[in-house]
Amino acid sequence: MKVDGKTYRTIWLAEDGWTVEIIDQTRLPHAFTVVGLRSLEDAAHAISAMLVRGAPLIGATAAYGMALAMREDASDHGIDHACETLMQTRPTAVNLRWALDDMRARLANEPQDSRVEIAYARAAEVCDEDVAINSAIGDNGLEFIRAIHETGKRDRPVNILTHCNAGWLATVDWGTALAPIYKAHDLGIPVHVWADETRPRNQGAALTAWELGKHGVSHAVVADNAGGHMMQHGLVDLCITGTDRTVASGDVANKVGTYLKALAAHDNGVPFYVGLPSPTIDWTISYGVRDIPIEERDQREVTHISGKSYDGDVLDVQLTPDGSPAANYAFDVTPARLISGLITERGVCEASHEGLATLFPEFAETP
Amino acid sequence: MKVDGKTYRTIWLAEDGWTVEIIDQTRLPHAFTVVGLRSLEDAAHAISAMLVRGAPLIGATAAYGMALAMREDASDHGIDHACETLMQTRPTAVNLRWALDDMRARLANEPQDSRVEIAYARAAEVCDEDVAINSAIGDNGLEFIRAIHETGKRDRPVNILTHCNAGWLATVDWGTALAPIYKAHDLGIPVHVWADETRPRNQGAALTAWELGKHGVSHAVVADNAGGHMMQHGLVDLCITGTDRTVASGDVANKVGTYLKALAAHDNGVPFYVGLPSPTIDWTISYGVRDIPIEERDQREVTHISGKSYDGDVLDVQLTPDGSPAANYAFDVTPARLISGLITERGVCEASHEGLATLFPEFAETP
Repeated sequence: MKVDGKTYRTIWLAEDGWTVEIIDQTRLPHAFTVVGLRSLEDAAHAISAMLVRGAPLIGATAAYGMALAMREDASDHGIDHACETLMQTRPTAVNLRWALDDMRARLANEPQDSRVEIAYARAAEVCDEDVAINSAIGDNGLEFIRAIHETGKRDRPVNILTHCNAGWLATVDWGTALAPIYKAHDLGIPVHVWADETRPRNQGAALTAWELGKHGVSHAVVADNAGGHMMQHGLVDLCITGTDRTVASGDVANKVGTYLKALAAHDNGVPFYVGLPSPTIDWTISYGVRDIPIEERDQREVTHISGKSYDGDVLDVQLTPDGSPAANYAFDVTPARLISGLITERGVCEASHEGLATLFPEFAETP
Repeated sequence: MKVDGKTYRTIWLAEDGWTVEIIDQTRLPHAFTVVGLRSLEDAAHAISAMLVRGAPLIGATAAYGMALAMREDASDHGIDHACETLMQTRPTAVNLRWALDDMRARLANEPQDSRVEIAYARAAEVCDEDVAINSAIGDNGLEFIRAIHETGKRDRPVNILTHCNAGWLATVDWGTALAPIYKAHDLGIPVHVWADETRPRNQGAALTAWELGKHGVSHAVVADNAGGHMMQHGLVDLCITGTDRTVASGDVANKVGTYLKALAAHDNGVPFYVGLPSPTIDWTISYGVRDIPIEERDQREVTHISGKSYDGDVLDVQLTPDGSPAANYAFDVTPARLISGLITERGVCEASHEGLATLFPEFAETP
């Protein structure tokens, strides 16, 4: 998508043809900084220090990390070492494991002197595949926005609420939840996005607001608490979020707070859609609330927050009294009954096993 | 309640017998500072600059502001001037108008040389009446906590989620939502409070956590987003919030985000109670969502936040990208159907016109 008129992806090759460039997302929204990755170590650091985040982008960075590693040591030992190093950066990231397994399988039986070239080519493919998936999600979700826009004579844009960041910054391009919004905007359909702040890590206030603003999409940041009131008063036409994991029954795990918005949407008759690339479907689990483990993160994410001071410095401040503890549940599960539909790269389906089976018959054997 | 072992109210007379002392709540939770009010101007500033907040405490401060004003000018003109000055501090505060009307009525027909004494005596009564109301709410709500505690053998405290600050800091003492919790704690019933952060003004993270901690009540701050997940997983036994206005049908206006927690409580079978002093019942309105106007506040409350830096300075930092706007709806309305009961000073009733009429027959003529 665009940053001040110039088109970017979140990861690309520099003009030298081998340096991998990324946007340092830890510095957003207060500074836009491009960082060059020139070694396995650089790539590992970019993932572990969260310069890149979002499952698809982590996978893409790991793929390019393997390519950089092959430049340093293209031996079998080099493959093992690179896979181990990269896997340790975010051990629970599903896309990371997938990308590393894929790269290893493609490199292992090739002659050493062709491994660099093969790795770079495959990393580029991984990126392009992600872009194609997200673009298709965008096209499929676009129809809901267009339908609302075309309902009667509207004197206002289509108001869409989203939670967390499932935009192009979390992927290689387009995003998942935000892809339909970018498609609509680029076609001239007037859209306005309510970006949930998304405490405690503020991905909405920081990343979603930044990427929408830079691409020129009308938006406003709202406190996570506000969505219910806004839906009661007709200020939200549609909700779209992303997901970290969708299970076979259509239950959706996503950033904590998603469930509360889905409840409010259901209570007020507001459609609630989830944008998801099919690799995030977990066919092995059926009961989301019971069976998806929810990460509990460092309480400092609740007690402290990072922001830009009057002087322009970016620093942490403490929000809570000295000695008051915090609890920090990172995700929640939205039951399928609250979800209007799942927007995938193959089309839109009901949030249910039957719905998913229609689009993905090859995976959807009854568990 | 207690601060480090010493008992406080939020407003009291100094040892000199006439200076009015308050806690500067703008400096909480990072500093505990007592401020002396010695003039009408001091009292007006304390209200307008939000050194005191919470409807009951604003009313009590206004009453003492009238007493301070009578020391300066006890003439009829002095009464008029004091009422006008204080009324301008928070023009929409219902308790402020009530307290000023009450003081004016009691002073107007008295001789000038007795007005100081009468004003101080009445201000003290206003405070004591508030404490009595809140203590009764505490006794009435306590029964729900006790009942949960006594249900079978529990190996854990009663877990209570609250939103915003409806504690003793918002009143003269005890608070409304927190009064039952303090009563339970003081009786040795083990309680643990989940304090919703309450973005954007963070009254939960700053004030509720502070006052619970200082009184010795076990608690943890959670992001506003977390409550739904916690209720899905049995981590919340009971929700109690306060209210800014309860209408004749039992619909409740409270800090934005309350509605989302009530939805989650309803979806998970968690009891959701509202503590309210009867003066906050608005008998003239029946349809809360439709008829209660919701204040939209400065977007800076969303884009910036105040906290304590590593150096100990308290400062504002910007959370959002330059140029990203925000919207800031301050309250929402929770429909009566989501509320398990209203805890008043006269007892607990169903959140309905019939329920309120049982406790308050003298007000509850059919609108």
